[in-house]
Amino acid sequence: MLQSIKISVNGQGLHDVTQAVKSVVSEQGGDGLCTLFIQHTSASLLIQENHDPSAKYDLERWLNRLVPENDSLYTHTLEGPDDMPAHIKAALTASSLSIPVVGSQLALGAWQGIFLWEHRHEVTQRKILLHYAKDSCDKV
Amino acid sequence: MLQSIKISVNGQGLHDVTQAVKSVVSEQGGDGLCTLFIQHTSASLLIQENHDPSAKYDLERWLNRLVPENDSLYTHTLEGPDDMPAHIKAALTASSLSIPVVGSQLALGAWQGIFLWEHRHEVTQRKILLHYAKDSCDKV
Amino acid sequence: MLQSIKISVNGQGLHDVTQAVKSVVSEQGGDGLCTLFIQHTSASLLIQENHDPSAKYDLERWLNRLVPENDSLYTHTLEGPDDMPAHIKAALTASSLSIPVVGSQLALGAWQGIFLWEHRHEVTQRKILLHYAKDSCDKV
Repeated sequence: MLQSIKISVNGQGLHDVTQAVKSVVSEQGGDGLCTLFIQHTSASLLIQENHDPSAKYDLERWLNRLVPENDSLYTHTLEGPDDMPAHIKAALTASSLSIPVVGSQLALGAWQGIFLWEHRHEVTQRKILLHYAKDSCDKV
Repeated sequence: MLQSIKISVNGQGLHDVTQAVKSVVSEQGGDGLCTLFIQHTSASLLIQENHDPSAKYDLERWLNRLVPENDSLYTHTLEGPDDMPAHIKAALTASSLSIPVVGSQLALGAWQGIFLWEHRHEVTQRKILLHYAKDSCDKV
Repeated sequence: MLQSIKISVNGQGLHDVTQAVKSVVSEQGGDGLCTLFIQHTSASLLIQENHDPSAKYDLERWLNRLVPENDSLYTHTLEGPDDMPAHIKAALTASSLSIPVVGSQLALGAWQGIFLWEHRHEVTQRKILLHYAKDSCDKV
């Protein structure tokens, strides 16, 4: 089963997509493996603390300090000052993530949320593909 | 097939989980795909050099230098000085890993081991989920 | 279905493997999930910009600056000055990647290519395993 999930974003930062993923999986039901794939090279996927907003805030600022805009190293500058940093950030984080499903529920740990990490300033929509393979076929 | 593996850890560093994963897979047998998922936001999964302990030692010290404790950037400090660095380290490394299985064996390269990378000082146990999907159903 | 893909490399940098992966998947046909696994600890897998060579050039130079050779931190130096940096770079990037397949085609975004990121200078060949699980069995 493959479904495309559209995520509205408003600038850099972590956008929680846990509920969007959960609702697709719970509608399908069963046990299996849910794989997320982001169809972009300047945004990424992340499993992180879902509780304290300060953790998300620090994560974002830390990565912006590690990969700043206007670094004199960049030659790829035609698409704006946030473009090359966005590609580097995407390279350092995940493009795909796989999470087991048990009894129609994502088997996330107590403090885990799933986030789309937007690395550009002015993008307003991103697309994540959700693939869900049920285990049932193993029993055939 | 889904199994939960409990890993005893004693502070920061790479904990080899290769044997624990191998024994579950070999008990199940067959060919397929083994996916590991860590249910935490301050520890991660890693495929690395399984031979020379100096590589693991350097990896740990390098990441501790890149993401030090007591950085004045952090606002998320209530859970201790190692908590925010642990979240950042987890964001830079993997939460899930998928490894093919051939003839009941993980298809790892000659020098590859699977590690749980603990990023906190005082945690004593972590949980990894192992999902194993056999290929056999493809042949139905 | 599991296939081993041999990739010729000539030193550090991004080697485009998109066509090699596409041809295996299109030969198999159908819908499902394609998982790539690299059998090395000093090279990695990456989804990145497939269009402008300057993005690849900057990515490579940025990572070489973050993880330089001859860092006095390294104790693992017997295998050459590029070995420990290569392990660190591999730890910061992906060992496995999963990409959905729709109608015999990889569901990559418009600007996404799949790359083997070689982190050593003198390696000439690498091996990627391609696992393809078709969805059809879900319908049995």
